[in-house]
Amino acid sequence: MPAPIVEAFKTVGLIGKFATPSSSEPLCAVASLLQDRGIEVLVDNSCEALTNTCSMFPCRSRDDLARLCDLVIVVGGDGTLLNAARSLAGRGVPLLGINLGRLGFLTDISPDDMEYTLGRVLDGQFFEEKRFLLQASLVRDGEVISTNEAFNDVVVHKWNVARMLECEVSIDGLFVYSMRSDGLIVSTPTGSTAYALSGGGPILHPGLDALVLVPICPHTMTNRPLVVNDNSKIEITVCMNMQEQAQVTCDGQLNLALNPGDKVCVQKKDAIHLIHPSDHDYYHILREKLHWGKQLT
Amino acid sequence: MPAPIVEAFKTVGLIGKFATPSSSEPLCAVASLLQDRGIEVLVDNSCEALTNTCSMFPCRSRDDLARLCDLVIVVGGDGTLLNAARSLAGRGVPLLGINLGRLGFLTDISPDDMEYTLGRVLDGQFFEEKRFLLQASLVRDGEVISTNEAFNDVVVHKWNVARMLECEVSIDGLFVYSMRSDGLIVSTPTGSTAYALSGGGPILHPGLDALVLVPICPHTMTNRPLVVNDNSKIEITVCMNMQEQAQVTCDGQLNLALNPGDKVCVQKKDAIHLIHPSDHDYYHILREKLHWGKQLT
Amino acid sequence: MPAPIVEAFKTVGLIGKFATPSSSEPLCAVASLLQDRGIEVLVDNSCEALTNTCSMFPCRSRDDLARLCDLVIVVGGDGTLLNAARSLAGRGVPLLGINLGRLGFLTDISPDDMEYTLGRVLDGQFFEEKRFLLQASLVRDGEVISTNEAFNDVVVHKWNVARMLECEVSIDGLFVYSMRSDGLIVSTPTGSTAYALSGGGPILHPGLDALVLVPICPHTMTNRPLVVNDNSKIEITVCMNMQEQAQVTCDGQLNLALNPGDKVCVQKKDAIHLIHPSDHDYYHILREKLHWGKQLT
Amino acid sequence: MPAPIVEAFKTVGLIGKFATPSSSEPLCAVASLLQDRGIEVLVDNSCEALTNTCSMFPCRSRDDLARLCDLVIVVGGDGTLLNAARSLAGRGVPLLGINLGRLGFLTDISPDDMEYTLGRVLDGQFFEEKRFLLQASLVRDGEVISTNEAFNDVVVHKWNVARMLECEVSIDGLFVYSMRSDGLIVSTPTGSTAYALSGGGPILHPGLDALVLVPICPHTMTNRPLVVNDNSKIEITVCMNMQEQAQVTCDGQLNLALNPGDKVCVQKKDAIHLIHPSDHDYYHILREKLHWGKQLT
Repeated sequence: MPAPIVEAFKTVGLIGKFATPSSSEPLCAVASLLQDRGIEVLVDNSCEALTNTCSMFPCRSRDDLARLCDLVIVVGGDGTLLNAARSLAGRGVPLLGINLGRLGFLTDISPDDMEYTLGRVLDGQFFEEKRFLLQASLVRDGEVISTNEAFNDVVVHKWNVARMLECEVSIDGLFVYSMRSDGLIVSTPTGSTAYALSGGGPILHPGLDALVLVPICPHTMTNRPLVVNDNSKIEITVCMNMQEQAQVTCDGQLNLALNPGDKVCVQKKDAIHLIHPSDHDYYHILREKLHWGKQLT
Repeated sequence: MPAPIVEAFKTVGLIGKFATPSSSEPLCAVASLLQDRGIEVLVDNSCEALTNTCSMFPCRSRDDLARLCDLVIVVGGDGTLLNAARSLAGRGVPLLGINLGRLGFLTDISPDDMEYTLGRVLDGQFFEEKRFLLQASLVRDGEVISTNEAFNDVVVHKWNVARMLECEVSIDGLFVYSMRSDGLIVSTPTGSTAYALSGGGPILHPGLDALVLVPICPHTMTNRPLVVNDNSKIEITVCMNMQEQAQVTCDGQLNLALNPGDKVCVQKKDAIHLIHPSDHDYYHILREKLHWGKQLT
Repeated sequence: MPAPIVEAFKTVGLIGKFATPSSSEPLCAVASLLQDRGIEVLVDNSCEALTNTCSMFPCRSRDDLARLCDLVIVVGGDGTLLNAARSLAGRGVPLLGINLGRLGFLTDISPDDMEYTLGRVLDGQFFEEKRFLLQASLVRDGEVISTNEAFNDVVVHKWNVARMLECEVSIDGLFVYSMRSDGLIVSTPTGSTAYALSGGGPILHPGLDALVLVPICPHTMTNRPLVVNDNSKIEITVCMNMQEQAQVTCDGQLNLALNPGDKVCVQKKDAIHLIHPSDHDYYHILREKLHWGKQLT
Repeated sequence: MPAPIVEAFKTVGLIGKFATPSSSEPLCAVASLLQDRGIEVLVDNSCEALTNTCSMFPCRSRDDLARLCDLVIVVGGDGTLLNAARSLAGRGVPLLGINLGRLGFLTDISPDDMEYTLGRVLDGQFFEEKRFLLQASLVRDGEVISTNEAFNDVVVHKWNVARMLECEVSIDGLFVYSMRSDGLIVSTPTGSTAYALSGGGPILHPGLDALVLVPICPHTMTNRPLVVNDNSKIEITVCMNMQEQAQVTCDGQLNLALNPGDKVCVQKKDAIHLIHPSDHDYYHILREKLHWGKQLT
């Protein structure tokens, strides 16, 4: 009985890959497909240039998309979806990702069978998956001076390669360790297959209520990845003898310089809902991306 | 107001390290301390020999301890506590561990300050921590032929070193991967600092509702540790071309030979409650055991 | 001026994959190609059954092949070549490997272009590469009771999964460490892309005069792979409290039970010469086998 | 017959830890000890301030030390000795390291027994160990624009954390791989226990004629450490789409910005000779520094 759900998607927002002309054609194809089904289409302001060729669709701010749409479709790579998730988290509107060629962990609908798969989703053949984001607050001299969101990871790291990061980590007010390393990644399950994996971290199933702390090139080899509850409050304090050599990054998109004594507080924030086709299989994506062994029989 | 809690521990069971004469003295010391406080002491049958010198205490079966005691104190190493936990899980009686020299992850009261710390626990200065166990069922030709418990880990592995284990893994009915390796560890958070850590797994905080799958020397290097929800049902099927070379082990204590086609099903089982002194600090134990960096300031 | 080299290959031995009927056809194809060039072909006794269809070729013992041939061609997988190398090392006759489908590290000529590539090798378009083997001696109560060869690796390991291997390692008479682990791999550069890689070891270039010791799941996380000179004499002593739970394996082909106090002495042995086509590229094989990144430009 | 060797050390240079007043006292103690034995003492210019209290010793340039001394003694940490090695490599004068408290891999004489141990070395109870350095040349548009030395490692890395390093690596003119990562370490055996170890590299015995390439957080998990002959010529080319985000560092002491297309060429350079007391044991230092297991019997 998909009919009521179809009605739920009366207005759909579209976000494309910023400044990437090659994403124009698939973006317009999605827009047409939606229009053919009588769905109102709003295009993200950042993609105005991409929709010149199919310019009957109104462009709106990200905030308007959140307010007016029942669904936002992202056409791009995982990076484009990360960006969309950070701006739409906590706003109630779900996201669906269509990749531009290479299968993504988040953009799991292929352009090749987009028409069929998207059609089925609009017919109600889908499920929602809740994913949480992180909030990173930078505290200096007792005051929060900056707050940012991350869908994959918050990374504290040295930027001057001749130095190591020295920091102290506490969780829920309990001291965990002091560490000398290249940096420390705090990752969501979503981010566990991104930078954290390169740093030697485990894969966290997206449905897991957990965070993982992954030290980057730690001086002490026993400083292993640590998986904790997603309600944990993580504090990373830059040691006083570090001379302005540390930075903090959210999803690799922001660089804030850290002073000695600065504290980066990381905790769970609003969730975003991802829409997947009914036959979506997370393990299938893992196998494809990581060249894992196929079923033998 | 600890008084009512003291009353709660009217009868306390004692389990020592099996066939280890050196554990006799600390065991008797604990027994005397309890008796001095008017607590009834029951000693585990397996430790009868250890309490000859303090033989006024009645010996009882493990089942009786579960039925009659308000608390069971384990004097030994982590291995002794693992054994006690498997036999007492789901029976409602909490466990407290006193180590015999070397700090354990589970036996976190040192013999040196045992008198003071145990006294405080009996005064009500403690907290309870819930930990779950695993159940491993061996399914052959569609029938469960054996079921065992594990507090640390269930390990499927080759025993003939000239061969690799070939198996297929599924979680909640979804195929995950086929794998050639030395074996596969399914570990609880409790076990994540034991064998799973040697195999390259992450540390899971004991309070985390999660399991971790750690491949041992996988042929495919991208077969990384995978952390999933603790409600997951994990199935490991031994490939048909394996010629009776595989085994399954629970907490390293049981060896069941596996036939080609056999399936090992692992899922969460009963919980056990551990009693810790109020000032117990899990991260302190991690730092001590793993030589992590101390607080700098 | 390849002529003189062609003369060098007057008699060529052939070794196929034991008891593998599918290797019969490629084996006979190689034999015919050699015969067409006027080269005398001798077939390894173990492959008699495989050459029934092309039975004009005399079968000889491995020893005869070593004595009579200017070259031995192995048609099979890396395992078949390992076997041939162990039996022919130190006998002066070089080896050339043709794989049966899947590219091998050692069997680097593909059956698809075998005719062309083998032709070029026989025309003199080749180079020789020297690789050394290991000798593992088992010393009990001061006496050598067994000696075996390995081309990939010598592995000392526990076979009872409920126990750990406890051993002491010394190199050139100097104590290195005592270790609790699943086992210890001593690998040649040739073996560094085999089991040692699964155990976390580095890749050693085949031309390197070095050995690598790779602990398997060591209890102490800082027990990292150690690369030493290939002239090193490595001694692994099984600790006295191990109760007949350890074994030693050469190339995964032999299992000798070890008693407490037994010593496994590993050192370099005779070399074998591998023949490669002139355009052989070790890094190309690594890239293919390990899915490494291709050249961008 | 140590007498002739004592004569060999007629003039000894002294290098202390730059701008570290606490190293003044041990430096003067060494100077006095040498003077008492009739040895002429020359102090490095950089340490003039440190020898104010024992100011009868003439200060000289690093170049003079190399020219006039039979031995240079470094009093400091491994960093001080790395610096001395880079400036004195290829000049023929051997180095001896005395640490200032914490055992170093290179400064292996403890201040506690310095008097006795140094006395024995001066009596001839020592051996020399040859260690090689690396030379890193930066090639831009076909021209070498900078050349530097490293005793531990040459590191090419991104400095902008929001980006990955993309580079191509070739060895002896053969393409090895293209890689996306945080960076690439080329390490000597000496450096294998420093940054390369944090990055997951193996330990190379100091006597090994080898280099190791260790990728830092590689995007492709199969990009494992690669050990090659020390005569290898390694070329790391920064990909054209990197926008001035890469740098090269020698022993963590120099930062040269790399342009897209720049090539870093690394190869073996001059050797330095380290002097060790006769009873020096490399494995003992490894055990101490890495908390490895002690001998059981």
